[in-house]
Amino acid sequence: MPEKIIQIARSQADGSSRPVMLAIAGDSASGKTTLTKGLTEAIGEDRCLSICVDDYHKFDRAERKKLPFTPLHPDCNYIDIVEQHLQLLALGRPILKPVYDHATGTFTRPEYVEPKEFVIVEGLHPLATKLTRACFDVTVFLDPPEEIRHKWKVDRDCGKRGYTPEQVTADLERREPESALFIRPQRRFADIVIRFAPVPGREDPPGSPLSAELMLRPTIQHPALDSVLNDDHTSAMHLKIIRDRDGTPTDCLLVHGHASAEEAQLLEKAIWTELGTDGGAPPDHIGEISPGTRSEPLALTQLILLYHLLQVRANQRRAA
Amino acid sequence: MPEKIIQIARSQADGSSRPVMLAIAGDSASGKTTLTKGLTEAIGEDRCLSICVDDYHKFDRAERKKLPFTPLHPDCNYIDIVEQHLQLLALGRPILKPVYDHATGTFTRPEYVEPKEFVIVEGLHPLATKLTRACFDVTVFLDPPEEIRHKWKVDRDCGKRGYTPEQVTADLERREPESALFIRPQRRFADIVIRFAPVPGREDPPGSPLSAELMLRPTIQHPALDSVLNDDHTSAMHLKIIRDRDGTPTDCLLVHGHASAEEAQLLEKAIWTELGTDGGAPPDHIGEISPGTRSEPLALTQLILLYHLLQVRANQRRAA
Repeated sequence: MPEKIIQIARSQADGSSRPVMLAIAGDSASGKTTLTKGLTEAIGEDRCLSICVDDYHKFDRAERKKLPFTPLHPDCNYIDIVEQHLQLLALGRPILKPVYDHATGTFTRPEYVEPKEFVIVEGLHPLATKLTRACFDVTVFLDPPEEIRHKWKVDRDCGKRGYTPEQVTADLERREPESALFIRPQRRFADIVIRFAPVPGREDPPGSPLSAELMLRPTIQHPALDSVLNDDHTSAMHLKIIRDRDGTPTDCLLVHGHASAEEAQLLEKAIWTELGTDGGAPPDHIGEISPGTRSEPLALTQLILLYHLLQVRANQRRAA
Repeated sequence: MPEKIIQIARSQADGSSRPVMLAIAGDSASGKTTLTKGLTEAIGEDRCLSICVDDYHKFDRAERKKLPFTPLHPDCNYIDIVEQHLQLLALGRPILKPVYDHATGTFTRPEYVEPKEFVIVEGLHPLATKLTRACFDVTVFLDPPEEIRHKWKVDRDCGKRGYTPEQVTADLERREPESALFIRPQRRFADIVIRFAPVPGREDPPGSPLSAELMLRPTIQHPALDSVLNDDHTSAMHLKIIRDRDGTPTDCLLVHGHASAEEAQLLEKAIWTELGTDGGAPPDHIGEISPGTRSEPLALTQLILLYHLLQVRANQRRAA
């Protein structure tokens, strides 16, 4: 059971040398990079490393054209090397990471990467195997409604990667069976499932922030939000216990896009205080979609993730 | 003491999954690739993987131009990643190996490499640290006289890599201090030190095979050549015990370039018989410098290395 060995090794490793590891899994264009970027900025790049496991593709774009599967298929990726590199990072060791250039669809010079205090691992497959999962302290799955994700993918791939909308739509169709088989099943291994979406039944004006629905699963200990929030589903923010798709109980936090800054900041303060940060304010720029545009649902999502990362770190320090 | 941990892990690993590891260290153009190629062909490419640790350079050729050191300096190489990858291979695990293209002086797409039954690791620094050395079953250092090596380097770098003889000579001068500091000290960690050279005092016609002088150090158990050879230094092949440069006793086997095929094959047969290969002949093509041209000193050198590789493998099988 190699996943037990890495768990034991991590528990024995000196807290100061062992990074706090966060996985952000999700399908293509589900918002992984945006969330990762926000967290990295909040923590500071000097203390936080982020890597993308999609760099571990086996084939370049030209080679993939001849293959019967898409990059979503585990056989299209060196999952065994991902397992190896995640174990090394989790134990505080450097790796020589492959680099896939999305602009050209080719592999370039590998990159020497040393873990920092916090390591964020995003991509299509960070929760693919027992061994990869054993490397993380906190695991997240991004689960936007498919129609939103499709729109995000068209916007991004046409904007940054030079595809036409028809190409992206055809690609999405081709990927769907493998998405169902290999990406969405990772949802069940996440401590937190995040869904940004418009609130059903509301006609918010275009440009309104999306709401955030967060499944806070009892696999890790979440901040005690029930002292601040109730389950009144008419409020802009509420917390209720529900059964997840597989029947297991979970907390569900909903933050509406129209939640006021005052309301949201009350909750932010409660989370931040529970962390015991001695009155310091939450990091700047939290919840920023673009410079100057702030989304309270995004701010609270980032803050809950920060809470967990800092909590793990504090526990390591206490144990050391 | 991580080097002990890897030694223990290797001794515990299942013999059938743990490759036999051979290091071939030596300065630039000392004959590493030729020796590696000969052994790989003798064993068969299906059973033998060879890798070059010079692929772990930190800088490409253009970047190195601005640096105060040459590729011989350990700081010019990811020695920590070399240590990591050698440990993984030694335990039977795959690696994603960087690839340095000597023709262009740049890094290309990394290569997924799985160990085979035998793994030959050649390069400038395979014996650089305690941890790299702990990964090997047999270690070799190539130690040709400097004037021979310089000639080989000029021939190769002008022939295959597009340099002028003046450039190569200037490069050799620039490298000399680092060669003395970082490459030649690895000699003392080799079980076998190999020196191909003309025999001093003889005026052999051009094109005569070089003689081979092999230090067979008591760090591993060599075939019992003393039953076949004596220390008569006038014979074309002889074996004597000497003190090595640092004063430690060692066997020294000398095979002259003019040794006859009959004499050499008697010795080859003795080595091969001691291995207990049940009357099978030594591999084809052994000792071939080029198709059809055979060197007895090279043949005996390769055969002694093969003896050790196969001996380790047989011992693993007996222990399993």
